Amino acid sequence: MALAEICTPALLVDGRMLEANITAMAAWLSKYAPHVRLRPHAKTHKSPDIARRQIAAGAIGVCCQTVREAEAMAAGGVADILLTNQLADPVKAARLARLARRTRISACVDDVEQVGLLSDAATEAGVRLTALVELDVGGNRCGVPTARDAVLLAERIAESPGLTFGGLQAYHGRAQHFRQPEERRTAIEQAIALAQETVEALKAAGLPCDAVTGAGSGSFEFEASSRVYTELQCGSYVFMDADYARNQRDPTGSTPVFQQALTILSRVVSHPVPGHVICDAGLKAMSFDSGPPTLSRHPSLRYVGGSDEHSKLEADEGAFPPIGELVQFDPGHCDPTVAMHEWIIVHEDGFVKELWPVARGW
Amino acid sequence: MALAEICTPALLVDGRMLEANITAMAAWLSKYAPHVRLRPHAKTHKSPDIARRQIAAGAIGVCCQTVREAEAMAAGGVADILLTNQLADPVKAARLARLARRTRISACVDDVEQVGLLSDAATEAGVRLTALVELDVGGNRCGVPTARDAVLLAERIAESPGLTFGGLQAYHGRAQHFRQPEERRTAIEQAIALAQETVEALKAAGLPCDAVTGAGSGSFEFEASSRVYTELQCGSYVFMDADYARNQRDPTGSTPVFQQALTILSRVVSHPVPGHVICDAGLKAMSFDSGPPTLSRHPSLRYVGGSDEHSKLEADEGAFPPIGELVQFDPGHCDPTVAMHEWIIVHEDGFVKELWPVARGW
Repeated sequence: MALAEICTPALLVDGRMLEANITAMAAWLSKYAPHVRLRPHAKTHKSPDIARRQIAAGAIGVCCQTVREAEAMAAGGVADILLTNQLADPVKAARLARLARRTRISACVDDVEQVGLLSDAATEAGVRLTALVELDVGGNRCGVPTARDAVLLAERIAESPGLTFGGLQAYHGRAQHFRQPEERRTAIEQAIALAQETVEALKAAGLPCDAVTGAGSGSFEFEASSRVYTELQCGSYVFMDADYARNQRDPTGSTPVFQQALTILSRVVSHPVPGHVICDAGLKAMSFDSGPPTLSRHPSLRYVGGSDEHSKLEADEGAFPPIGELVQFDPGHCDPTVAMHEWIIVHEDGFVKELWPVARGW
Repeated sequence: MALAEICTPALLVDGRMLEANITAMAAWLSKYAPHVRLRPHAKTHKSPDIARRQIAAGAIGVCCQTVREAEAMAAGGVADILLTNQLADPVKAARLARLARRTRISACVDDVEQVGLLSDAATEAGVRLTALVELDVGGNRCGVPTARDAVLLAERIAESPGLTFGGLQAYHGRAQHFRQPEERRTAIEQAIALAQETVEALKAAGLPCDAVTGAGSGSFEFEASSRVYTELQCGSYVFMDADYARNQRDPTGSTPVFQQALTILSRVVSHPVPGHVICDAGLKAMSFDSGPPTLSRHPSLRYVGGSDEHSKLEADEGAFPPIGELVQFDPGHCDPTVAMHEWIIVHEDGFVKELWPVARGW
């Protein structure tokens, strides 16, 4: 099936670019940070098919952000899953605990309430769950604020039936999108310092910390060289997006340039006045939370606005695409864009190669 | 099933508010504009269950924005469907034409390319499709710019096998969200003037214009009193959202106040520092294109930021919700928010009353 036969809008992933991104990350880790494990975040792709390719390239398992993702990954054969999130609902905790009958399952906590919920669910399901204490290393979202709070919570985990203390979640989400490499480095140095202090406090309390896990596609080179982090959680590197493309790279750095593998396929449906082009992908097909899409594959087109099912473009004179022409958008933010679609269409050389389902919902 | 048993995040519709909104619109039309028909836009809800309730209250059919919506509405028994959009793809045109074997189907055009595509699809399927000329009445999206262009295109429709000329699509999308009623009135007066001029030009060309269709939940009182528009396409009035709630009402107007029937149910999953609350509904559960969600049902909470699967709130002192507490968000924009969910959960008095599927995808 050719791309021209696809009903638009549709979520496309360039198969060769995807493989190149997976290979580039594995090669970088093996050369520059062989002591650090990769546990890619599956919230980016929600696809066991992609997770299996990451694991085949050396990843030790995946992170998930929702129980639905964890269920799909477990069903797809992923053997080690970390829920990088807090649960506050006994139904979801029970769903997660059931997965631990066949898969290694870890989850994060930052409050004794969640510790009780996970412990009860594990006991009820007859399993052990691994609980990590989430540390707020600068993201200002979830996570205990101090090393002392982390030790108190780790002690509570250690004494809870059904739970094993597994280490620290120390992800700095906001730092991923600081534009200058020096800003990212400074933010991650602070994260590393708090993680280091917490590891030592845990050790002093007799609670060895097996894992310090975090990092994303915008900052992983800093966590990787920290000697504190044991796992990296990069997710977006498999797809990339318009917002990650705005990050400035460290000119002296060794980190790979990941390719824009993810696009939204769209069609020109109208060109009501010369130079203005209307396409059939809008707010319901691409996420706008991190800014509008770009058009890196179409240098003569510029995105100027969108509505529910439309995007409006300006075209250079002499490069005015006809009705029916295909356009590929680089969405602003890959993760929420993927969640708007039911299928990932993998393409190579203008043809559909595979269809992979997206584990949407919760 | 109680709301507290629902896995969050989830799309909720208050059943009584939904019925009240449907009834209020029908009552207003019957009192103030009995000569105008209501053809509500199904892109808001993507739900044949809601469409049937609108039709039971007097609507003549629905508008759709995608072929997928039209297929779901036809399968759900809706007998008159207008696709308020242009098609540029023979596969989609064929899908639409097949629906015309059992349902009255109309679609919009603003170019001879689309006329040819629809005519070919109708001929191939052995049906007649009704084609409306879309007029750009100020939305600056699709639509021919002048009455003269509209006449030329209507003539092309009239001479095309398989097609019947059905009138004018004259929707001013941008005007729906002008904050002041006078801004909306001025914008719609210009739309009315161009529609009026075009109806007369069509009549002079021997092409009677059976329908002039347009208007949305932000402006319908102006189109309804125009004596030019024959159909109103309001959609959002069934749900409302934070952005529509920011529109100023005309203090002298008769138009009903529609209720915020749509919310996203979420749970508090973490409260890492006093006064800060983290909930489990983020960018993947609520659309942010028209601004962040509001919390009209929780006067002591304020939305301060979001990420993929989280929202961060500030709480008044003494009103600090515990982990596990339910929170209902009013999303910024109802239409793209609905498209992120698989089910509409209809609730009354704290209990689930019905589950209605959402016709997502394209």
